Amino acid sequence: MSNKNKDFVKEITSREEDASQWYVDVIRKAEMVDYSPVRGCMVIRPYGYAIWEAMKDGLDRRIKETGHKNAYFPLFIPESLLKKEADHVEGFAPEVAWVTHGGNEELTERLVVRPTSEAIICSMYSKWIQSYRDLPVLINQWANVVRWEKVTRPFLRTTEFLWQEGHTAHRTNEEAQEEVMKMLEVYRDFVENDMAIPVIPGRKSDREKFAGAASTYSIEALMQDGKALQAGTSHNLAQHFAKVFDITYLDEDSQLKHVHQTSWGVSTRLIGGLIMVHSDDRGLKLPPKLAPIQLVIVPITPKKAREMVLDKAHELKAMLHDAGIRVHLDDRDQSPGFKYNDWEMRGVPLRLEVGPRDIEKDQVVLVRRDSGEKIFVAMDQLQETLKELLPQIQQEMYTAAKKFMDDNSFTAASMDEMEKIITEKRGFVYTWWCGHEECELEAKERMSATIRNIPLDQEAAKQMAPKEAKCIHCGKPAKEVAIFARAY
Amino acid sequence: MSNKNKDFVKEITSREEDASQWYVDVIRKAEMVDYSPVRGCMVIRPYGYAIWEAMKDGLDRRIKETGHKNAYFPLFIPESLLKKEADHVEGFAPEVAWVTHGGNEELTERLVVRPTSEAIICSMYSKWIQSYRDLPVLINQWANVVRWEKVTRPFLRTTEFLWQEGHTAHRTNEEAQEEVMKMLEVYRDFVENDMAIPVIPGRKSDREKFAGAASTYSIEALMQDGKALQAGTSHNLAQHFAKVFDITYLDEDSQLKHVHQTSWGVSTRLIGGLIMVHSDDRGLKLPPKLAPIQLVIVPITPKKAREMVLDKAHELKAMLHDAGIRVHLDDRDQSPGFKYNDWEMRGVPLRLEVGPRDIEKDQVVLVRRDSGEKIFVAMDQLQETLKELLPQIQQEMYTAAKKFMDDNSFTAASMDEMEKIITEKRGFVYTWWCGHEECELEAKERMSATIRNIPLDQEAAKQMAPKEAKCIHCGKPAKEVAIFARAY
Repeated sequence: MSNKNKDFVKEITSREEDASQWYVDVIRKAEMVDYSPVRGCMVIRPYGYAIWEAMKDGLDRRIKETGHKNAYFPLFIPESLLKKEADHVEGFAPEVAWVTHGGNEELTERLVVRPTSEAIICSMYSKWIQSYRDLPVLINQWANVVRWEKVTRPFLRTTEFLWQEGHTAHRTNEEAQEEVMKMLEVYRDFVENDMAIPVIPGRKSDREKFAGAASTYSIEALMQDGKALQAGTSHNLAQHFAKVFDITYLDEDSQLKHVHQTSWGVSTRLIGGLIMVHSDDRGLKLPPKLAPIQLVIVPITPKKAREMVLDKAHELKAMLHDAGIRVHLDDRDQSPGFKYNDWEMRGVPLRLEVGPRDIEKDQVVLVRRDSGEKIFVAMDQLQETLKELLPQIQQEMYTAAKKFMDDNSFTAASMDEMEKIITEKRGFVYTWWCGHEECELEAKERMSATIRNIPLDQEAAKQMAPKEAKCIHCGKPAKEVAIFARAY
Repeated sequence: MSNKNKDFVKEITSREEDASQWYVDVIRKAEMVDYSPVRGCMVIRPYGYAIWEAMKDGLDRRIKETGHKNAYFPLFIPESLLKKEADHVEGFAPEVAWVTHGGNEELTERLVVRPTSEAIICSMYSKWIQSYRDLPVLINQWANVVRWEKVTRPFLRTTEFLWQEGHTAHRTNEEAQEEVMKMLEVYRDFVENDMAIPVIPGRKSDREKFAGAASTYSIEALMQDGKALQAGTSHNLAQHFAKVFDITYLDEDSQLKHVHQTSWGVSTRLIGGLIMVHSDDRGLKLPPKLAPIQLVIVPITPKKAREMVLDKAHELKAMLHDAGIRVHLDDRDQSPGFKYNDWEMRGVPLRLEVGPRDIEKDQVVLVRRDSGEKIFVAMDQLQETLKELLPQIQQEMYTAAKKFMDDNSFTAASMDEMEKIITEKRGFVYTWWCGHEECELEAKERMSATIRNIPLDQEAAKQMAPKEAKCIHCGKPAKEVAIFARAY
């Protein structure tokens, strides 16, 4: 449908010219997303949704392998339930959608459209959990959530978005904390291995933690424009919700105790990260594991040889399909050049060109989207070559993104130094932080940078930090290295 | 968690005593569902959701195989969009949830939480479709929808439910009609083959068709209590929506034309049908294709042999898991009898018992949930036996349900005759109908029965109808045989 779209984007604005416009051009031109008549809500079109489906598959498998089961809780949360946990309501109430009428009647109690499901899920857990034998409860939900955003941006910040949210209950804080770290690792593994995006796992500062959590952990990724993106969060809720929702269990020692809880989630926001980490001025670049089409066949069909080439192309398609490759044959009545551009724009990892001369030589030409490299392959070597090449592309896309992150990770010993880096180069800035909110806020006020997280791997972080362990703002002794950055 | 549930259902009420209570007991005791603090909204618990996931897999595969792609459209629909198609708004406005506030602000235009997505999707199609080359558009969506129901019942009628909704656009009415019938057949195939539920495909009367459709087709199933359940619908929307949403394309003949549309959907309601068709007074009965656990191993462990039996049980579990069977080993510290009841209640198709004497004889015992049959199988024959037995159970569950439907399909030549059947025996009543609403309404007023559909296979339907082709109410000549029944 693309070239008949009323809003057809003729060219992709270059990243240098306008990174923000580039992003919008890429996703609209690749038909991943479209604006809807509802303020702040996007339509995820089939090509974008197919990427989300591949992501869901990879995540869902990992979530189940770690012992969790999926369930589904109501979209609506009664106002009184949301209000039970004080921090939680304070954090979310300003950004929820309110349902006030059902049919023709005004509701006796307003309902919020879930911005997250702690409140509704806790109300059920208090019914389901009675004994230590009922623990742990390990449940995940795939759902849509709504947060009334003032400024929106497709995938990155939309009023409605899709996500998974895990909600677990445990006997002890140790078990809960173990779960929090386990799921953070699941996210790291998924984002690095399936999305080819390197991330820094770490703890959030108190200011940046989830409304109602005792502690929040995140994985943070660096976009090509030098801004950070929070790519997944895992929260230790301690007993905050258990106490207000009365979730208790009779322990082996016959004592009634409150459970310890966690929650964790990633969302369609990650698709925004995928685009901003890998793509270029020609359009999308998709890692093979998530590409709806991994290889597109473009037949070169001079009039005389048309049928012969198309026969061969169909044969190749069937062969590759049987080998488990997501393959598409572009037999549209368009020039090869048009097709090359079109599929590059859509980020298909490999293009296979085949024409009469190739058939004569019993070969095909492969062109990599990530590097532009051309590879001549004998027909009978094709399957074997692809078996190695697709994982290689996946790996090299990760390596390239990792190199970019490393190249854009800096050290600053003072606010002035940090401001210079943040305003001129952006990127991750490693520095010491005393743990006080004033010092964190100073960076926000001066340069719109926030603490992304305090890396779990402090040994590695210290290598990136100034030698002297002094807080970047107040100069007092500091124990931890934090990463500051501007963020989406 | 079951036996610690505050709302633990001790016994399942028998179907004879109270079919309605039986249904609720079964789904709550099997932990498929629970009531939520939100009026009319249910929580689908992990065991119920796993069944939905298996159903989604089977349906999604078929939907994709027939050329459709998934996408995602916004949850909210502006009031003005819903109101564009007159029949549509009249049908849905009385039962929608209204969002009136976002954050702390009152919205300038109210939003409805989607009861179905025709309006929002049509508004996008009018942007995307320009030329005949853009057609057909074949999109499906998996989503939650909300309809403000006065009286609710888990799975069967809830304020929020989960479903898939297909929305397609075509050049001609012929193509649209072909799509409508193709998807009805996809539903029939899925419901009969995966759910083991026989259905009657047919056309709805005008009174019962979808709000905004030119014609609606359904598959209708018969529950054990003799009431019908609409198990899936497929609508020909003709150009009704295309005209009000201005969805036009430039045809090859350079004429601007309106597209022809269809929509079709099935929902979590089907899970209610699954329960009501197959289960009994001991609880659920699940067909192997949808059972989250296909076989449960219950080890018989007298003290002395405990370790030896458990070792063997683990070995069997690993072997069956590798053979692709969804297997669970129940090694809880409970009596075998308790476990037998527990898993029967949850509908697991096969139980495998293994104890010291079985091991001595190198055999295991299989017990079928559907028939109660006990089968002794030599260990080395187990895998082979299961490979045949699971499909056999699937088939025999279908056959049993088909026999029930046939046994409860009746013929009536007059309203009195029909009333006697409907009130005494219920079931499907085949009869002639002239096509007028008055005659259809008479049945509703006298015996709360409606026309379920006008079977596509009129030849077969005529075999079930009175010989004389006269309308059951007015006695005028009739051309079609309809099925009347009370329905959920």
